[in-house]
Order: sequence, then structure tokens, then C-alpha cells
Amino acid sequence: MTLKLHNYFRSSTSTRLRAALNLKGVDYDYVSYALRAKENYSPRFLALNPQGLVPALERDDGTVLTQSLAIIEWLDETHPGPALLPPDADGRARVRALSYMIACEVHPLNNLRVLNHLADRFGADEAGQKAWFTHWVTTTFEPLEAMLAGDPATGPLCHGDTPGMADICLYAQVWNNRRFAIDTARWPTISAIFERLDAIDAFRKAAPPNQPDAA
Amino acid sequence: MTLKLHNYFRSSTSTRLRAALNLKGVDYDYVSYALRAKENYSPRFLALNPQGLVPALERDDGTVLTQSLAIIEWLDETHPGPALLPPDADGRARVRALSYMIACEVHPLNNLRVLNHLADRFGADEAGQKAWFTHWVTTTFEPLEAMLAGDPATGPLCHGDTPGMADICLYAQVWNNRRFAIDTARWPTISAIFERLDAIDAFRKAAPPNQPDAA
Repeated sequence: MTLKLHNYFRSSTSTRLRAALNLKGVDYDYVSYALRAKENYSPRFLALNPQGLVPALERDDGTVLTQSLAIIEWLDETHPGPALLPPDADGRARVRALSYMIACEVHPLNNLRVLNHLADRFGADEAGQKAWFTHWVTTTFEPLEAMLAGDPATGPLCHGDTPGMADICLYAQVWNNRRFAIDTARWPTISAIFERLDAIDAFRKAAPPNQPDAA
Repeated sequence: MTLKLHNYFRSSTSTRLRAALNLKGVDYDYVSYALRAKENYSPRFLALNPQGLVPALERDDGTVLTQSLAIIEWLDETHPGPALLPPDADGRARVRALSYMIACEVHPLNNLRVLNHLADRFGADEAGQKAWFTHWVTTTFEPLEAMLAGDPATGPLCHGDTPGMADICLYAQVWNNRRFAIDTARWPTISAIFERLDAIDAFRKAAPPNQPDAA
């Protein structure tokens, strides 16, 4: 099976999916969509994914999977290799909750189409967008730091020492934070986990600057 | 096991979890937090959930589960009764993607703390908040309608005829839309699914107006 990954180097949700594919050792063809040029709203891509969102994963039977976390769960269920979710229900609930803190509370507020809409609708300039971005990162990274630092289930990584879905979300969001020069060092546990992940080949190869379309 | 549901009648993510608990036939104690009065940021609640977000599900061993979709997956994995996710990996990927379209693209942009922040930061009045809310509902409900209407996997409900996680998200979001008088009838498939769900006891009992703290 050849998988075609429709994505963009700087897209945080694309980074998540690249890391998951790399962790599973799954090869894929890289198809890039320049988001600022709105290539993701081309008729060709909308025919694949009416949401106009990357990433989307196309299988060679033509079916297209969307929404990064749904694809990561699918990958984990259908592909051998290291598990991206813990074996126990409590562990899975914890890893999913940590993942959704980023995927449902931070990223949706801070992606490009939201920042563009803030500019269009409320005249938010670069400084206004940075303040907005920083506010929502801080709102969730504060309790995320507390929940990671205060729970014995946290290990060198988000959940023990096996990289999984929460690590994937954390890694991609910290890269995203760099766009607005947010200093992650104020959250020491998050920061230490990021550094450990960044030393793992599967993550490093998924990072925005290491993609073929990196500006 | 007695479960304590920390929630609020109008919270869309609380509606999701109430519907899931009802579908599974699981009893719970209802603990209400008035979000406009910021009761969810009381020290007592922050000790349970540092995120300050409802819903949270407290077990009688004192452990607290957070993030509605993580709790719904946990419920499905640990409790008997009708499955909230399909038995096949492709079906699960589809239901999760439909769920995350609402949980990651609509709801995070439209909850109370975001609307409050728009008012504080950009002076968004009621009309500005309604325009913002409507914009993000429309941005995702358009492709959601297309994806539901165009896929033979859709049945009377989001995925065949068994109520599941995508239905739970759709039902709660349509209730949320009513706050800003968004007419869901412009999306006929979504609208028909909502009406069918609203006729199911487990959903109807989870609806905002049917809660003990409903204003």
C-alpha cells in the first residue's frame, strides 16, 4: 500500500501525522500545499477533502482519511510497530486527554485561517495575532505543565518512556509556538519532553524545517 | 462505581458526555458549575481539573477524567452497552473524523471563554460574537453536510443507524447553534440527523433544557 500524504511543512497537524507515520515506520509520498497561497482550497484538493484542510492521507484505493488524530488512531489500529496509545484504558484516557488539550484547546484557535479571520474581521495586526496566539497557548500550557509535572504516570515523555499520541501533539505544538517566538522554557516539563522528542529520529524527521517544501 | 459528572447544562461538551452516559445506561451524580459566574475556576474545581473546564468525570476512587472525547472513548472501552464507535478500523476513522470536525474545528472557536476574550480584546459585541460564531459553524457545517450527504456509510444517523460518537458531537453542536439562532435547516442532512437523535431518549435527556440547572 502506497500512502500519499497531502500536507504542508509548517502545518502543525501535518507535523503530527508525519511523526506518527515515522514512528510506525510507514513510507509515504509527500504532496505539498502552500497554505498562504490557498492551494488547499483548489478544486483538486477539495475533491479529496471538502474541508480544505491538511493533512489528508490518501490510500491507493483512492479513499482519503482526514483529521490528524483520527488518522493517527487508524494508523495505530492497522499498522504494526510501536503502539501510539497505552495498552490500558486508563492510560489511553490520559494520553487522549493530554492530546485533546492541545488538539481541541490550543491549535484550533491558532491556525492560519483563524489568524487571517482575526485580521479580516477585527483588524488584528501581527502584534494582535501574537497576543491572541500567546494567550491560548498559555491558557492551556499552564495546566498542561501542572498535569504533566504532578502525575507519576509522566516519565521522560508524556506517558512513561514510550513516545505516543500526546508526545506527537506536544512536539508539533511547540514547533508551532516558535512561529510567534513563545519561550517554552517557562514550562520546564513540557520543554524537557520536547527536547527528548527532538532527539528521536522519527520526530526530528517530521519537524517543519526538515521537509522538502520548507521555505 | 458512582460517577460524579462535573458539568453545566448549556456546555456543549457536557451535553456530549451526558448523551454518552445515557446511551451506555450509566447513572451519575450531577454537579453543576455556572460558567458565567466562573464557578469552574473556583479553587475547589481547579483542584479536580487544573484546566478549569467542564465536563470532568470523577470516579469514586477520586480519579478525574477530563476532555469529553477522551472520556467517551474510555466509557466505550470500559462499559458494556451499545458501542459508540464502529467495530471496523475504517468506520472508526470515519466516525472520529466527523467527530473531530466539530470538536476541533467548530466548538473550540465558539465556546464562552473565546467569545469573552473576543469581547475583551477586540470589543466584539453581541452582533460581532454572533458573526464569529456563525462563520466557524458555517465553515465546517458546509463540508460536514457534503461529507454526510455524499457517503453511503451515512444512514439515518451519521454512521449507519447506530447512534455513536459523531452523532453525540453533532447533537450537542446543533443545540449550541441555537444560542445564536443559527438555522440548521440550511444543512438538510445534518438537520434530519439531529431530529432523529432528538427523538431518542438518551439524547433528549442530555439536552440542555432538560437539566436540573437549566436557567
